[in-house]
Amino acid sequence: MAGGSPCASCKLLRRRCAKDCIFAPYFPPEDPHKFAIVHKVFGASNVNKMLQELPDFQRADAVSSLVYEANARKRDPVYGSVGIICYLQNQISQLQMQLAFAEAELLCIQMRQERSLANQHVIDIHEPSSLFCATASPAFLNP
Amino acid sequence: MAGGSPCASCKLLRRRCAKDCIFAPYFPPEDPHKFAIVHKVFGASNVNKMLQELPDFQRADAVSSLVYEANARKRDPVYGSVGIICYLQNQISQLQMQLAFAEAELLCIQMRQERSLANQHVIDIHEPSSLFCATASPAFLNP
Repeated sequence: MAGGSPCASCKLLRRRCAKDCIFAPYFPPEDPHKFAIVHKVFGASNVNKMLQELPDFQRADAVSSLVYEANARKRDPVYGSVGIICYLQNQISQLQMQLAFAEAELLCIQMRQERSLANQHVIDIHEPSSLFCATASPAFLNP
Repeated sequence: MAGGSPCASCKLLRRRCAKDCIFAPYFPPEDPHKFAIVHKVFGASNVNKMLQELPDFQRADAVSSLVYEANARKRDPVYGSVGIICYLQNQISQLQMQLAFAEAELLCIQMRQERSLANQHVIDIHEPSSLFCATASPAFLNP
């Protein structure tokens, strides 16, 4: 019972809202839809049992997740929140693929740079002129 | 009614399994847990209503998603399948961040390479010797 009016659950179920009503803290009379959707999908009796099995401090989170699931089931009567899970799993697969491509590209560039540096080193060893071309005297280039 | 025995739902609810029982195609007697968990979370009456509202070809998928959700709620009584959604959303955020980093790194490398090519071009214009040091005649280097 919140502020004299019965909670949304007791109002919908047309029963007296007791002082210790388990629904009252989570289903205020101003938001009748919140309980209606949870009741339609899970049933008041099941929600009651689920809340009874939880300690007080976890009940608000449990109600929020039940409301979320119930709304998902309303939007998508076939897949409900499992539809969202599938969608997110697909998104993860796509992102993992994009990341793998980007990492492979980075690796390729890194290997190309290393090869180019190694080649440069070979050129430097075998062709000392390339090291000195800007600074060496013409006599060195044409002994 | 499948093969003479009542379906798992009618067995659990201790009722006669009619020929056109809405649960029978999806809750065979060999798998009593499947109906038990869905009944515990959603209630047989709600599941019945949900299935009635769907065309035949979508009912198997709806049952699968309800079983998935119910099992998720059993494993995690506070967050249920919403816990999985949160976990996946976090994974997506992390992957998006990793991808953004990898793409930024690629962009940096690309810009560095372009800058290096541009600098090389400037050197090539101002110091033609660097282009010809290996091939040009000593006369060119020392006119």
